[in-house]
Amino acid sequence: MKYGYFDDDNKEYVITTPQTPYPWINYLGMQDFFSLISNTAGGYCFYKDARLRRITRYRYNNVPTDSGGRYFYIYDNGDFWSPGWMPVKRDLDSYECRHGLGYTSITGQRDGIEAKVLFFVPLDFNGEIHRVTLKNIGDREKRITLFSFVEFCLWNAYDDMTNFQRNFNTGEVEIIGSTIYHKTEYRERRNHYSFYSVNADISGFDSDRESFIGLYNGFDAPRAVTAGKSNNSVADGWSPIASHSINVVLQPGQERDFVFVLGYVENPEDEKWESQGIINKKPALAMIERFKTTEQVDKSLNVLKRYWDELLLKYHVDSADPKLDRMVNVWNQYQCMVTFNLSRSASYFESGIGRGIGFRDSNQDILGFVHQVPDTARQRILDLAATQLEDGGAYHQYQPLTKKGNNEIGGNFNDDPLWLILSTAAYMKETGDFSILDEIVPFDNDSSKAADMFEHLKRSFYHVVNNLGPHGLPLIGRADWNDCLNLNCFSTEPDQSFQTTTNKDSKVAESVLIAAMFVFIGKEYAEICRRRGLDEEAHIARHYIDEMKETVMKYGYDGEWFLRAYDDCGNKVGSKENEEGKIFIETQGFCIMAGMGLEDGSAVKALDSVKKYLDTKYGIVLLNPAFTRYYVNLGEISSYPPGYKENAGIFCHNNPWVMIAETVIGRGERAFEYYKKIAPAYVEERSDIHRMEPYVYSQMIAGKDAKRFGEAKNSWLTGTAAWNFVAISQWILGIKPDYDGLVIDPCIPPDWNGYTVKRMFRGVRYTITVENPEHVCKGVKSMTVDGYPVEGNVLPVFADDGEHEVRVILGC
Amino acid sequence: MKYGYFDDDNKEYVITTPQTPYPWINYLGMQDFFSLISNTAGGYCFYKDARLRRITRYRYNNVPTDSGGRYFYIYDNGDFWSPGWMPVKRDLDSYECRHGLGYTSITGQRDGIEAKVLFFVPLDFNGEIHRVTLKNIGDREKRITLFSFVEFCLWNAYDDMTNFQRNFNTGEVEIIGSTIYHKTEYRERRNHYSFYSVNADISGFDSDRESFIGLYNGFDAPRAVTAGKSNNSVADGWSPIASHSINVVLQPGQERDFVFVLGYVENPEDEKWESQGIINKKPALAMIERFKTTEQVDKSLNVLKRYWDELLLKYHVDSADPKLDRMVNVWNQYQCMVTFNLSRSASYFESGIGRGIGFRDSNQDILGFVHQVPDTARQRILDLAATQLEDGGAYHQYQPLTKKGNNEIGGNFNDDPLWLILSTAAYMKETGDFSILDEIVPFDNDSSKAADMFEHLKRSFYHVVNNLGPHGLPLIGRADWNDCLNLNCFSTEPDQSFQTTTNKDSKVAESVLIAAMFVFIGKEYAEICRRRGLDEEAHIARHYIDEMKETVMKYGYDGEWFLRAYDDCGNKVGSKENEEGKIFIETQGFCIMAGMGLEDGSAVKALDSVKKYLDTKYGIVLLNPAFTRYYVNLGEISSYPPGYKENAGIFCHNNPWVMIAETVIGRGERAFEYYKKIAPAYVEERSDIHRMEPYVYSQMIAGKDAKRFGEAKNSWLTGTAAWNFVAISQWILGIKPDYDGLVIDPCIPPDWNGYTVKRMFRGVRYTITVENPEHVCKGVKSMTVDGYPVEGNVLPVFADDGEHEVRVILGC
Repeated sequence: MKYGYFDDDNKEYVITTPQTPYPWINYLGMQDFFSLISNTAGGYCFYKDARLRRITRYRYNNVPTDSGGRYFYIYDNGDFWSPGWMPVKRDLDSYECRHGLGYTSITGQRDGIEAKVLFFVPLDFNGEIHRVTLKNIGDREKRITLFSFVEFCLWNAYDDMTNFQRNFNTGEVEIIGSTIYHKTEYRERRNHYSFYSVNADISGFDSDRESFIGLYNGFDAPRAVTAGKSNNSVADGWSPIASHSINVVLQPGQERDFVFVLGYVENPEDEKWESQGIINKKPALAMIERFKTTEQVDKSLNVLKRYWDELLLKYHVDSADPKLDRMVNVWNQYQCMVTFNLSRSASYFESGIGRGIGFRDSNQDILGFVHQVPDTARQRILDLAATQLEDGGAYHQYQPLTKKGNNEIGGNFNDDPLWLILSTAAYMKETGDFSILDEIVPFDNDSSKAADMFEHLKRSFYHVVNNLGPHGLPLIGRADWNDCLNLNCFSTEPDQSFQTTTNKDSKVAESVLIAAMFVFIGKEYAEICRRRGLDEEAHIARHYIDEMKETVMKYGYDGEWFLRAYDDCGNKVGSKENEEGKIFIETQGFCIMAGMGLEDGSAVKALDSVKKYLDTKYGIVLLNPAFTRYYVNLGEISSYPPGYKENAGIFCHNNPWVMIAETVIGRGERAFEYYKKIAPAYVEERSDIHRMEPYVYSQMIAGKDAKRFGEAKNSWLTGTAAWNFVAISQWILGIKPDYDGLVIDPCIPPDWNGYTVKRMFRGVRYTITVENPEHVCKGVKSMTVDGYPVEGNVLPVFADDGEHEVRVILGC
Repeated sequence: MKYGYFDDDNKEYVITTPQTPYPWINYLGMQDFFSLISNTAGGYCFYKDARLRRITRYRYNNVPTDSGGRYFYIYDNGDFWSPGWMPVKRDLDSYECRHGLGYTSITGQRDGIEAKVLFFVPLDFNGEIHRVTLKNIGDREKRITLFSFVEFCLWNAYDDMTNFQRNFNTGEVEIIGSTIYHKTEYRERRNHYSFYSVNADISGFDSDRESFIGLYNGFDAPRAVTAGKSNNSVADGWSPIASHSINVVLQPGQERDFVFVLGYVENPEDEKWESQGIINKKPALAMIERFKTTEQVDKSLNVLKRYWDELLLKYHVDSADPKLDRMVNVWNQYQCMVTFNLSRSASYFESGIGRGIGFRDSNQDILGFVHQVPDTARQRILDLAATQLEDGGAYHQYQPLTKKGNNEIGGNFNDDPLWLILSTAAYMKETGDFSILDEIVPFDNDSSKAADMFEHLKRSFYHVVNNLGPHGLPLIGRADWNDCLNLNCFSTEPDQSFQTTTNKDSKVAESVLIAAMFVFIGKEYAEICRRRGLDEEAHIARHYIDEMKETVMKYGYDGEWFLRAYDDCGNKVGSKENEEGKIFIETQGFCIMAGMGLEDGSAVKALDSVKKYLDTKYGIVLLNPAFTRYYVNLGEISSYPPGYKENAGIFCHNNPWVMIAETVIGRGERAFEYYKKIAPAYVEERSDIHRMEPYVYSQMIAGKDAKRFGEAKNSWLTGTAAWNFVAISQWILGIKPDYDGLVIDPCIPPDWNGYTVKRMFRGVRYTITVENPEHVCKGVKSMTVDGYPVEGNVLPVFADDGEHEVRVILGC
């Protein structure tokens, strides 16, 4: 069952009922100011850091589930309603929500009034614009009152929801004209405030939540709205909010619009005050000035749309499959950008409290995003590298506001360092910019401990070499990519975090996945060395890699598939010898991506085992059989009920590793079959089962052992986005950036006739038409550029900033 | 304006409208299982530790404010309502909530049905009983459906509200007959579960929140209730709840009752399972068995009431003032007990997340509670002492579940150690049990570092002696009693906690309050030494105390009042030289309690300054004038808007210090005037301004500089309770336990004719009749015990467990 449709021309997903199976959200903001907004206008916004600079308050896991947002109420002669249905939930004559790229528009109609609200965060602007357009679509004059509403968070989202003894005493506002300024704690150490204004005279306002809503009312029936009248309340402690009321008279056919600005301001320390106790409002007034008219809003929205149009031109496919096109051209790339921006910090499943920017996460996210805004990727790589420790290890996360490693979580996730090599290589391949290797970057954010970026990569590589276990495989540390496989944890106390508890000395448990990563990513390191003229180091590195390959085939293969690990007792994990968890997905994908088992059929066997034991109609589960009880030697993975999360859920992030592995062995049909199983556009029809947004990937879909098989969770912020984009764009469609140019190497279902990819690469626009007359999966038979035949399958790099036509013929 | 009344005979506060100015709550539970319950049945429960073992979920600062609780819904032919009005908010024909001692009863009537719900936690029982009595008070047959509802918390309240990526996957239940078992994470490291059962066959159930309530509905209109039918849903991830539905037919006049048990069970590790994946339910079934009938409920409630009757007999006054009597005899003592049990961990203003058992807090709480359950006090003293550090310092808090010092907060609050001496002395005076001094108690919970309790007290004393500043006054450390006076903090970053940030070396800033405490409490130490036969140590201690007295009078008196402190630059705090914060309350009370300034009129001057500069119609503010801006050298105190919290709020905790000081100088009228200003029973008439419960103290009442002057906040858990009970019972009514017996030394308003106090003391019951024929404030003229005159004013300790009549005549 569907709850909307893709509007491909407008790059929008159109939701046609407010009662989606779960709130279906969008993200606003591309730089420093970010917002989450649901299809009923729920959600919140923050500046840079969802924990430390929360602008508006949001209550997770509430009743109703999605409570709080930027709400508008229309009071119409005793009746009142909201254009987004929530929170009032009064029946609407029509409803539509359009989630676009960086904007959302919600339109509701009731009893002769149409209210359309456009929400977006303009480029280079620390705030949200809400434009409300009211139209009399009936045949009688209408006298209505429009109420706005936002609730302020007292900045630090964690303190905001725990420290009421303090919080209920600190709230402060100023109200000037049509603007409500929220200045809690500005009197002391803060130099920032927020404000909510409208470009019209107001009939009244409220800034105290209890005055507006009442102690016993919900968002669905604020006291002021039920009365049709604001109280002009001035918040003093308790919960500051901002609400305007505007009386509007509309003749039949008449339309009026109002532009609300919800903004965030930081003042320099010596310009904090206008006079004693009165905040300096100049920056706010300048922001308001930018959006005084609806024309200014239109113009700004168009700038944002053009910005996205250009970004998406970097990679564009025209195939015979509209679902594929909309995923590749719009939604997958959009999700990659959002995921990169937010890391794992703030979604409807991530509270913004517990997690900052992940080291492993962000380095992977860059793979899906580096072609869009490579400069931003470069900066992120340097920021990440600056949290690396001197021994090559890394803080697992850093806080976006401070960019400092998060001490509470710490490090010792032994896969982390390798991802830094992979992202840096991806950046250099995309841009050809090797200068990043010469950047001087601190270790542990300490500039006295700084070295060039190449040295950081070297330490990453040797962090594995220096931490090998009894079989010569890499020690796993706290965990590798699978945060929940905790082989050194052995926790029996429920109040211990699996992520930070280490009860073993970490010198025995080994990860076959890190071994595979070492081979796959180590080759990138060796290649970087070579291109830097360090042939000797390249040679040494290759030696280590070859050794690791041998070790994996000797100790890491279980007969029909790759093992997953060795536990702290030296016992196999992910082996036919195990009672449960006999086979894991990660190593099947990554070992073959790394080129292992290709010669002797082990790879094919392993992938056939994936098909046989792990594949389901909704995607590939992480392991099988699911753990039915807790294994203290395995940790969190066995703490989940069977079929959920890492315990045999369809953990989407690693499905593309299998897709890529399938392309490595040349099975394009199966690769694409796996692709379609989890790609959201293909899942749209079963939205009632899948429940999450049909335009973005979720982290997890419940596996076959779960009661809710097929139900997704944790949508939006997942490495799934980047890896699926890599899989489809580079390995299936086969347009892969490399140091010397774009490599063309598709691996597709044989029934495809062909497709065209438009690719911007180093300032040049390639239009690549792939034809498949012989209906093969793989193999470039011939290739021409601008009509001239080219040897091999690498497109030359042009220095001309121009456009080039490429024709690729597949065949044997 | 009032919202209810005191039912003195039943020791209940009766609330007559559900729409109180703020949720007015009660506490259930006396031992290990605790519940908060509002007058509309909102709130939650936990086992031992509000953070680590939260049984039911509660959302603080929600909209509506008090959302979530144990809710009952009555579905009556399409109509539905709740006996406590919330959450449905359907108009009731009548409503009444009775908050009693450890139980709450809520009765609502609508359309011919009366529903009465009794809530309590029985003694020696880890759970809540909810007895619902339904009566047909109309004249037609009624066919109704009763729905129950509780929502489970996933145990760790902090994780529960932040880690949704995990939480939404872990929820598990079992349902057998009329019992819903919540067993999330029992599969792995937990050995505990909870359950909700009813002593009747059910028509249906729900255990999945979304199935019961719906994604878009609120607690006010769960989908199942609006449909009149349960869905028999089995929770699997997301949010487990428990809801029963029972079809009930009632003839006119007919009554039926149902007993619900919400229980918590811990199983031994080797008895966790009944069979694979099936929890061992034996302990739960035994608990259910205890409350199968309404007679069992009645009996258990009576046991609880008798328990309280006996506790309250320890101190009982009969005066001419019913407000005084109800405060002293019931509500102040009740609050002392609750505050002792909970410390500052869980109220409607304390989220249960951030604070455990406070070292300073609990030691003070013991002063108000030790006469009720001295054995419990003894254990708490030992638990507290076990978190003391070897240098005499202390962790500021410990976690109730683990009893370990809280590392996140740490220590270095330099007043902390002294309070341990005061509580130990109070315990010994009450009981005569000196053996506590010989108990071997660890330092820092490390039994290898243990010493006898006397040694702990000695280290407390010398922690002050060893940490003196430039003027010879005690160094303040992070803060003294006033957590917000942070003289070594100098914080300019808003994300730093004032409580844990120390940017100065702590070697300059001094506290006059700790000096006063040292004199007041040091004397207790010297006396303990003397009674232990350590005359030399007693002598040395007295020498230090005398020196400190001199130092205070030399460097700590400002001409008309006592200074508060010296800051890190050696500048005065709380001096006429200051622009703001010229005078503070704490030292005026405590210095005079310690006997300073009595000889030369400084004390009288200081207390007259309190009257002149700090007293208001709603109580004594903490300082004056309020800080209008942030002082980096003073810290958090200046971070609050003027009139709130420590920044010139009426911070009730230290009002009794001034009351006591007034009795020290013999001004009984003024002492009692201050008492009445903040004692809740006297405030009842202005509940619309005061807003908090009129039966318990609040921590703070907004001061004269605040916009909401007179509005209280942070009710229930405050040291105010203990100190007011000390002030009224020991210093005003003047019945004071001492090592050698009860000291009788009233200090009352001269217009009083007298009063009678019944006091249980060391197994003996004294009935003490105080007569005031000459209408003096103070001075025992004569005293008889059982008709025999007694010299002095100390009642002898009898060894007879009997009853003794004491007659006291005041006069000159």
